[in-house]
Amino acid sequence: MENVSQDREDRIDASRDLIDGYLEEKKYLLARDELVQFKAPDIAEILEDVSDDKGLRMTVILFRLLPKDTAVDVFSYMSADDRVNIIKEITDKETDFIVGELDFDDKIDTLEELPANVVNRILERTPKNERKQINTFLNYPEDSAGSLMTPEFVSLKKHWTVPEAMEHIREVGTDAETVYTLYIRDDAWKLIGVVPLSALVTAPEGTRVGDLMRTEYVCEYVTADQETVSADFKKYDLLAMPVVDRERRLVGIITVDDIIDVIEDEATEDIERMNGVVDLDNSDRGYLDISVWQHAKNRLPWLLILMVAYIFTGMIVTGFENTLSKLPFLIAYIPMLMGTGGNTGSQAATLIIRGLATDEVELGDWFRVLWKEIRVGAVVGALLSVFNFARVLIIDGQSVMTAVTICCSIILIVIFAKVIGSMIPLIVKRAHLDPALIANPAISTVSDSVALSIYFFMAAIFLHL
Amino acid sequence: MENVSQDREDRIDASRDLIDGYLEEKKYLLARDELVQFKAPDIAEILEDVSDDKGLRMTVILFRLLPKDTAVDVFSYMSADDRVNIIKEITDKETDFIVGELDFDDKIDTLEELPANVVNRILERTPKNERKQINTFLNYPEDSAGSLMTPEFVSLKKHWTVPEAMEHIREVGTDAETVYTLYIRDDAWKLIGVVPLSALVTAPEGTRVGDLMRTEYVCEYVTADQETVSADFKKYDLLAMPVVDRERRLVGIITVDDIIDVIEDEATEDIERMNGVVDLDNSDRGYLDISVWQHAKNRLPWLLILMVAYIFTGMIVTGFENTLSKLPFLIAYIPMLMGTGGNTGSQAATLIIRGLATDEVELGDWFRVLWKEIRVGAVVGALLSVFNFARVLIIDGQSVMTAVTICCSIILIVIFAKVIGSMIPLIVKRAHLDPALIANPAISTVSDSVALSIYFFMAAIFLHL
Repeated sequence: MENVSQDREDRIDASRDLIDGYLEEKKYLLARDELVQFKAPDIAEILEDVSDDKGLRMTVILFRLLPKDTAVDVFSYMSADDRVNIIKEITDKETDFIVGELDFDDKIDTLEELPANVVNRILERTPKNERKQINTFLNYPEDSAGSLMTPEFVSLKKHWTVPEAMEHIREVGTDAETVYTLYIRDDAWKLIGVVPLSALVTAPEGTRVGDLMRTEYVCEYVTADQETVSADFKKYDLLAMPVVDRERRLVGIITVDDIIDVIEDEATEDIERMNGVVDLDNSDRGYLDISVWQHAKNRLPWLLILMVAYIFTGMIVTGFENTLSKLPFLIAYIPMLMGTGGNTGSQAATLIIRGLATDEVELGDWFRVLWKEIRVGAVVGALLSVFNFARVLIIDGQSVMTAVTICCSIILIVIFAKVIGSMIPLIVKRAHLDPALIANPAISTVSDSVALSIYFFMAAIFLHL
Repeated sequence: MENVSQDREDRIDASRDLIDGYLEEKKYLLARDELVQFKAPDIAEILEDVSDDKGLRMTVILFRLLPKDTAVDVFSYMSADDRVNIIKEITDKETDFIVGELDFDDKIDTLEELPANVVNRILERTPKNERKQINTFLNYPEDSAGSLMTPEFVSLKKHWTVPEAMEHIREVGTDAETVYTLYIRDDAWKLIGVVPLSALVTAPEGTRVGDLMRTEYVCEYVTADQETVSADFKKYDLLAMPVVDRERRLVGIITVDDIIDVIEDEATEDIERMNGVVDLDNSDRGYLDISVWQHAKNRLPWLLILMVAYIFTGMIVTGFENTLSKLPFLIAYIPMLMGTGGNTGSQAATLIIRGLATDEVELGDWFRVLWKEIRVGAVVGALLSVFNFARVLIIDGQSVMTAVTICCSIILIVIFAKVIGSMIPLIVKRAHLDPALIANPAISTVSDSVALSIYFFMAAIFLHL
């Protein structure tokens, strides 16, 4: 599909080739001139590519040649790893400038990633008031509202008129994260209302802020989980949200651009957990930035748990060993029956886990879910067994009773796997855990054991073993 | 974790009990009074619960008792199914009022869900100009920028001064979707620049719009895919984006609240596809609203494809049948080896598919991915084989050579599964298809066959079969 993004990407790719050429000829200023025509997020992306291809040194050279304001902006769009690397390479004076000019929330993000000794050195050179504020923010738990917010909001006085309010916004607005929502506090700093800028702009001049103020607004405590915050943004279509402490004093605001990142990170976390990858060091680093050891550590917990489960699966098979050695053709269907159980189980689990995450399914719906999955399982199982009846008789040339054994097994396996796959996430949720944590591998392993037991039971009935 | 959301939820739950009581006693006005104290998204949620518990009729009664403006607002937050149901129950006059007052994008969303004859009846009663515009918007392909945008933006003239611009915003702003970004078109309606309201508000009075205007802005064509649009919002931290036609005429804008829904829907689609569920009727309906038949249809395609694959898996096992009946204890390890192959393969696939979706992994990285997965596979495989060496010798009491067979198999299976799981998504992406479409079930089934082949090969070597 043709689109404007594509034009932009093409232009960036063309420039990248030019920049690569300039860098090889050491024409750094020409490379810089090529770079500055783009927006900060694009420059950040190009610099990351340069550091992948030509090493960090080249990125640092280019970065230091950027106009100072652009450099700060670009810095805020870089990945955590790149920020740390750049800080390590530039002078203290350059660091102070960048850290000083960053938006408050980007400043906190950066400091959180840096080694403690570097942070301390930066803080020593920071004015005392700001140092105190930074330390407070650094202490909010990761994934809390406190760690997402910025103190750079604009507050108005209740008794101000519209022109007075507009004058105040003109004065302080450029340093704020947003001027589109304005906050009204009482003398004890307690939040008493919010005014959208649109209301101010469209109000008659004589109106007072207090008359425009909305006293019913959505806010959260600093300790609220970021998932709760993003659920509020989704439900109430917010652009920004005030964050308050226990005494309902306004301490910061969260803006929608940071929430978009949260929604994406939460989806990534769910997807990974559902497929048995646990992010043990809880980093937001990308796949390529995670070391081999960390990757192995993230993937081992579930595999090891499953190894224990397979000891039981092994026992089920061993208990049936004699029969299988008498009727060895039965072995050929084990992979199909196990696989079908695992796959249908994880289909059901996926739908329920995602439904719970997006609030489309609730705990109280458990019976409706159960009844729906039993019926879906019966329909799916019946259709799959028609296919397999033909396969066993025609392709494999086995007896009718063998075909009946396989088909009855399939129907029961699919129904059981759907029930297991849909109920386990609800039980886990009931225990106040993340349903995504009981990953699909676990569900398919449970389904495996159930599938084998059903198979051997059916064989005993129909083949008189 | 304690938070403000929880207080709100508790208050809503308490009110729900009250409302349920009032409804049973047919005290509808009291129920209405209880309802209207909440925000529109909360009222919509309560009404959906009422219709689940007490039937649609109750919801319609309550809905019609709401103040007119609230009713429109609540309507826009309801699910597609509920909107259609309500339209079916209310009078034409009520329908006209609601459809007339809805924001343009909500209007289009609603009309898209209604049966054609109802839409035609509504359009017959709509003024000709608006009817034409609605028809244009209804024709944009689903999932395109055109289907997300609204024509309700505010445009300014380049030569206006700040007070002139502010006056215009005051006049037309209340009907617009947003006044926080303003658009400047030339006489041929071509978009020439954008101005954020914050720039207008903080500019000196004498400044002209043209001086504040940014001519470098991010926009997309009406035909652009919604994934491209949401990627732009994420990358450039946008609140709104202009959408242009082939001649670069501004035809609409997309606002960030709609993009949040897109990001969530795309994540849901990816998660479902990765686990072998294909949304065949491409609806955004929730799990509980989808019929049993539709659920079965969505899940069958992959299961049937896999059934064909299992014919080959069956052949591999059959080729080894004699050995297995001679050494039946080897059968007990088939589930574990297959399961481990499937699970490790889908771990790798998950990370790569998600990495591609969030632009952390690119096609050009294939060799880095391959090399990383081989090493991760070696580490994971080695650790799992230590565990299994002990299991086979001690718990199962088998010979050392059997343990060696199992352990060598595990290491090779894990490495192969990691390579398969990571490379298949890249190959699919290279073919310009959605990597999530080659679902984890497929990857684990391929891994199954590879696992069995490796196992039997190792047994032949170490056990001299």
